[in-house]
Amino acid sequence: MHTADPLHVRLLRLLRDEGALSRAELADRLEMPRPRLLTELERLVSLGFVAEAGKAASRGGRRSTLVELSPHLRFAAVDLGASSIDVEVVNGRLEPVAAYAESADIRSGPKAILQRVSELLHKARVDGAYDRLDAVGIGVPGPVSFRDGVPVSPPIMPGWDRFPVRELLTREHGCPAVVDNDVNIMAIGERHGGVAHSVDDFLFVKIGTGIGCGIYLSGDVYRGTDGCAGDIGHIQVDPHGPICSCGNAGCLEALFSGAALAKDATAAARTGASPALAERLAANGTVTALDVAAGAVEGDVTCIQLIREGGRRVGSVLAGLVSFTNPSMIVIGGGLAQLGHVLLAEIRSVVYRRSLPLATGNLPVVLSELGSRAGVAGAAVLASDLAFGEAT
Amino acid sequence: MHTADPLHVRLLRLLRDEGALSRAELADRLEMPRPRLLTELERLVSLGFVAEAGKAASRGGRRSTLVELSPHLRFAAVDLGASSIDVEVVNGRLEPVAAYAESADIRSGPKAILQRVSELLHKARVDGAYDRLDAVGIGVPGPVSFRDGVPVSPPIMPGWDRFPVRELLTREHGCPAVVDNDVNIMAIGERHGGVAHSVDDFLFVKIGTGIGCGIYLSGDVYRGTDGCAGDIGHIQVDPHGPICSCGNAGCLEALFSGAALAKDATAAARTGASPALAERLAANGTVTALDVAAGAVEGDVTCIQLIREGGRRVGSVLAGLVSFTNPSMIVIGGGLAQLGHVLLAEIRSVVYRRSLPLATGNLPVVLSELGSRAGVAGAAVLASDLAFGEAT
Repeated sequence: MHTADPLHVRLLRLLRDEGALSRAELADRLEMPRPRLLTELERLVSLGFVAEAGKAASRGGRRSTLVELSPHLRFAAVDLGASSIDVEVVNGRLEPVAAYAESADIRSGPKAILQRVSELLHKARVDGAYDRLDAVGIGVPGPVSFRDGVPVSPPIMPGWDRFPVRELLTREHGCPAVVDNDVNIMAIGERHGGVAHSVDDFLFVKIGTGIGCGIYLSGDVYRGTDGCAGDIGHIQVDPHGPICSCGNAGCLEALFSGAALAKDATAAARTGASPALAERLAANGTVTALDVAAGAVEGDVTCIQLIREGGRRVGSVLAGLVSFTNPSMIVIGGGLAQLGHVLLAEIRSVVYRRSLPLATGNLPVVLSELGSRAGVAGAAVLASDLAFGEAT
Repeated sequence: MHTADPLHVRLLRLLRDEGALSRAELADRLEMPRPRLLTELERLVSLGFVAEAGKAASRGGRRSTLVELSPHLRFAAVDLGASSIDVEVVNGRLEPVAAYAESADIRSGPKAILQRVSELLHKARVDGAYDRLDAVGIGVPGPVSFRDGVPVSPPIMPGWDRFPVRELLTREHGCPAVVDNDVNIMAIGERHGGVAHSVDDFLFVKIGTGIGCGIYLSGDVYRGTDGCAGDIGHIQVDPHGPICSCGNAGCLEALFSGAALAKDATAAARTGASPALAERLAANGTVTALDVAAGAVEGDVTCIQLIREGGRRVGSVLAGLVSFTNPSMIVIGGGLAQLGHVLLAEIRSVVYRRSLPLATGNLPVVLSELGSRAGVAGAAVLASDLAFGEAT
């Protein structure tokens, strides 16, 4: 890939994030002499990235011409979960023009899953969502070599190790593609259009089937040496705890995650400790983390205890990470974020009690704003950044 | 402070780290046209940063002129510990031309301690180490606002909170000054001239009177939102552990640090569990962490156990941080690093067993190379970088 022109990237991001701007405003915002701006704009128009959008309201003198991102720009954003596929096609301003969500088992392997992604994108094209894609962004539930565009030893994705995801998508759609970890794209989404908007240093904690952490430091996602930074699900919280899928004892994820909570909830339903859960088990033959959330809202004591216990575990790990990274914000997202304020209150309480006062003096611990859309939103940001970097 | 010219900084760093270079080599290494280089060099000579150093060996044609950093450049590097002052005056290549080390209690307060630093520097001047200083770098044992050049709520430094350390040094020595945390300067020293030479992502773990961590990410020190990133001494490792100086229970530092180890060693000497320590207690009236190290070398089982136990605690915290940051290297330094390979072996064993295999596949866990000089070495690097940034 050739080196991106930072100026083009800044200009295109400005139009993506703020919409149509006049040439005068652009020259001001980019601190660029007018003649140079006009040359650059001409170039971006000829490349199909930018289009004219009529005249701006008068600022006294001649009315300046408005420019905006080309209405034909299209990015595909894909969020693969352990058991789900989310696909969106978005325009240059990252507004969805088509969206699909369905269940799928990531263990079906890369060929079957990526085949299904292609079918959904094909459907979007047939439905008129796009003629051609300018870039594809995809998140997968495991460690990724961001540089190589491949998953690396992903524990819950048999058959995906080093599978050339980026290469396949690039070939299939005739456009650049970018592959990242699912938690990273959620963090990116939340920073671009969510609660962490323009916060430079924050932790995005995903509590879902598993537990992971997206790390923003100094305004950039931090991915680590091998692309597996943020793997906090396997931090030990209890040496005498249950054996985790990774083989070690007492990992955070083995004690509190979608899977662990469902197990604890089923036990509480069977023993009758929780009337709310027993009722649901009888009605549905199974209980899930969402049943615990519903039970807690109804005031079921066992459900509230299960959530508080989990919040305490997560909080103890986060307290250490707050002492270590001294972030500006912690965002809690993922499926179990639906456990809501009981969970949040417990996490906050442990973090504030256990971390250095200096680090928690101004530390908001908040719920994700974008919820289940955080992943695709972030994948769209990555795809557009990639395309903008190629506009040189 | 005005904006630094990145080219000047690169040029001066090159001369600092590699010594005299010919103009031809400099032009090559900086990928800069010869005429531009000559203009820049002239400017740096007139500012007193660069000097000519004779002719290079011939490369076939005309012999190129060698340039080097001015032999008159002098930086002061200061490392304040909980109970020590280390001061060096170094030349442009960061080689010591004067060095002083003495005991001092940081709790004496900023005026007394900085007064003593000034006296030592005055002595160096009288001894002919320098005529004037080009910059001062100082590390202090507590959180620092790097931007403001002041300590911020440092737990073990009464009277230092927000004391204008940078301002005082600048005024006193008539040159720019930079203030950082003691563990950060050790990490900087180790990266510049030690075992982490040019490693971009690593953790420097200082185990001394207290425990702290310097964090290098993507080639830069990461200091966190409030300057207190790396405060791992207060991560909880045992909810039922002893009460720490911070008021919480079972902090890493309360279980294993210079102070904690001396306490455990004294107990083992009194009960007679350790003959080696009992002997030392009888002889000296006190036992320290170094006595434990000596006892371990002699094969005293209790001493070895104390060190292994400590290594296990440190390892359990580091295992989590490895999963979280996925670094390329871990460096163990500080006074207790003298416990040596027993400590290292135990830390390694826990980290390798507990962290994600992908993150530990190529993860060296090694002892500091610079030892007690790491701090001043890093302070000298910071001081020179600051001066180079002002050479514009």
